[in-house]
Amino acid sequence: MVGGAAHAGAAGDPLITQVQDWASGHGDGVDATPYGLPVKYESDVIRRNVDWLTADTISSINFTPIHALDGTITPQGCAFERHHSGAIDLSKQDYRLMINGLVDQPLVFTYEDLERFPRENHVYFCECAANTGMEWAGAQLNGAQFTHGMIHNMEYTGVPLRTLLQEAGIQAAGKWVYVEGADASSNGRSIPLEKVLDDCLVAFKANGEALRREHGYPVRLVVPGWEGNLWIKWLRRIEVMDGPVEAKEETSKYTDLLGDGTARKWTWEMDAKSVITSPSPQSPIRHGTGPLVITGLAWSGRGAITQVDVSVDGGANWVAARLAGHQHDKALTRFYLDTDWDGREMLLQARARDATGYVQPTKNALREVRGMNSVYHNNGIQTWLVTPNGEAENVEVS
Amino acid sequence: MVGGAAHAGAAGDPLITQVQDWASGHGDGVDATPYGLPVKYESDVIRRNVDWLTADTISSINFTPIHALDGTITPQGCAFERHHSGAIDLSKQDYRLMINGLVDQPLVFTYEDLERFPRENHVYFCECAANTGMEWAGAQLNGAQFTHGMIHNMEYTGVPLRTLLQEAGIQAAGKWVYVEGADASSNGRSIPLEKVLDDCLVAFKANGEALRREHGYPVRLVVPGWEGNLWIKWLRRIEVMDGPVEAKEETSKYTDLLGDGTARKWTWEMDAKSVITSPSPQSPIRHGTGPLVITGLAWSGRGAITQVDVSVDGGANWVAARLAGHQHDKALTRFYLDTDWDGREMLLQARARDATGYVQPTKNALREVRGMNSVYHNNGIQTWLVTPNGEAENVEVS
Repeated sequence: MVGGAAHAGAAGDPLITQVQDWASGHGDGVDATPYGLPVKYESDVIRRNVDWLTADTISSINFTPIHALDGTITPQGCAFERHHSGAIDLSKQDYRLMINGLVDQPLVFTYEDLERFPRENHVYFCECAANTGMEWAGAQLNGAQFTHGMIHNMEYTGVPLRTLLQEAGIQAAGKWVYVEGADASSNGRSIPLEKVLDDCLVAFKANGEALRREHGYPVRLVVPGWEGNLWIKWLRRIEVMDGPVEAKEETSKYTDLLGDGTARKWTWEMDAKSVITSPSPQSPIRHGTGPLVITGLAWSGRGAITQVDVSVDGGANWVAARLAGHQHDKALTRFYLDTDWDGREMLLQARARDATGYVQPTKNALREVRGMNSVYHNNGIQTWLVTPNGEAENVEVS
Repeated sequence: MVGGAAHAGAAGDPLITQVQDWASGHGDGVDATPYGLPVKYESDVIRRNVDWLTADTISSINFTPIHALDGTITPQGCAFERHHSGAIDLSKQDYRLMINGLVDQPLVFTYEDLERFPRENHVYFCECAANTGMEWAGAQLNGAQFTHGMIHNMEYTGVPLRTLLQEAGIQAAGKWVYVEGADASSNGRSIPLEKVLDDCLVAFKANGEALRREHGYPVRLVVPGWEGNLWIKWLRRIEVMDGPVEAKEETSKYTDLLGDGTARKWTWEMDAKSVITSPSPQSPIRHGTGPLVITGLAWSGRGAITQVDVSVDGGANWVAARLAGHQHDKALTRFYLDTDWDGREMLLQARARDATGYVQPTKNALREVRGMNSVYHNNGIQTWLVTPNGEAENVEVS
């Protein structure tokens, strides 16, 4: 008996003993679905927002339903997106990308121009710096979608930004780039040249197809392992500069106010983190005691995930989870703990370790260093209380 | 100059010199798209069928628009599907999977039962045995979507079938399984136990989310590297047997009639194959001479792709293409040849090599061995004629 999972007998089950409609007639043809949508039974597997989080939907966030997904790829249709002045309508024909500043030759690229450069393909996670940010002050939101759903993981196809900058010719004084989008917010950010030359992509496909409008169609910037606010959508302009701009999105926003009133800045790299997606508040245990699959996601902006530990007693004891699938650098890793549940209360936690040896800290360890004023970069260990009836809720452990 | 791609100047381009509507107002909020659909500009990136291929849409095929995709993952929405009696409507609540025959204990699993067993995640291609089948008699269909689009590549999450069979207890006489679906066709097929115990999955997620209805929601069989007809949708029953059933789908169909009137059978494993997706008849060159990215897909049912060669002169000379991304076993591999086009006619071909050392043959080499009567298992080298105006068409080279 592998796993020892429950099973039902056939006797008396009309689904087994009687011929069903779907086996005696025929189903619909599917010619009417040239682009197939999710089945009606999955209508709850959708992005959701938190209406009090931003003042207006023009600047808002829609969270991935990570509690209902499995594997590692996030489908575009339900993949997290953040916008600062709505999602604009920009055709490939109207698309232009300018490279200017400290370059030998300022350049403007059409969409078609971009398609003529050598492309790469990589699976990367994109996480908002504010993901889990509401948890600094304690357990706030009841569901993995809301606490950890500002993240997605897709296979991006694009041209290395390095290639385009080399085409323009970077001058010796150039040390940073300033990147901005074509939307009214422009969402301008500064990025050190070293990162840009390393692995940033000017991407035009995600999971094989064109970007969704809300993900920046037709072109977005991919900044692997770094906070999502840098992943400029509707990418319009890249200026090579000798220093950072200190723009709104990197001063009043996306910095970390510490307990002593000073602020951390340039905290781009996303620290190793994990969350149990099931069981969780939106994905309770419905099948009672016995075999139980505990599963979740882990990721690090510094490289691959090498280990995930799971605790069922609030961190007193830990067991290594099984990592299932490929552990790509700067991409989501799926983990499982195949266990038996005796029906007793659990305090479920996961703890990620990455290739640098970094281990995900507790929320309290983070608070000791960073205080309680921060909004961003909360990668503390999350706790779900699972009660004997199988329901789960977001709690803090001391 | 990397690649030396063309670029436009900014002067006189109103898209650069004038403020556009999308940068002065704001875009729509996206709260109305809890499940985001492709942008309106991509309305041609859809599945298509060939209306003369089957007598009725109740048994039909919808092809992946591989000419318009990039990377390796196929989004579910436009992923190839084949159905034999329509796409049935089956909820998780009504789902049952029976294991019977030569087992110690016949079992019936609910969907919830399946979720309690240890899961795996793998990226695999699924190719119909009839993919490229219309080409046996010469160039027939003008587009990679139609010649090679009976394929998709997704990350599957599921339970190894081995686990469920071990739960039932396989008796010593058991050497094969017979698998069938819940639809009226049932599409029953026989599979040797050795393959089943190796890597077959009872899958309930693809690319992270539930299967689309047309892909077998809620559960389908995944038979890595083997012909798509074995990947039973709406998986209903698995019977352990001492031999194969020789059912309709493995005698009158899915066998290969040879030139001498005999037929090959049990030709499950998909041989190494490749196709150039762009340029191709549905994806002509629009940008004139100069830098050109030639790209395509390669795959093998026997393991990873180790090399893809590209020819621009109908096979007289070959250049190794660049493999971009991860080369997973039994999964699509993306290749690129970054080149310059002088505007002359090209006879474009790609040739795949897999980890076993097998090299994709020419169509004529296949015909010499298998004759012209076959429908299935045509993995011959495909040729696109690219004319000086950039258009491409499906041709044969002698």
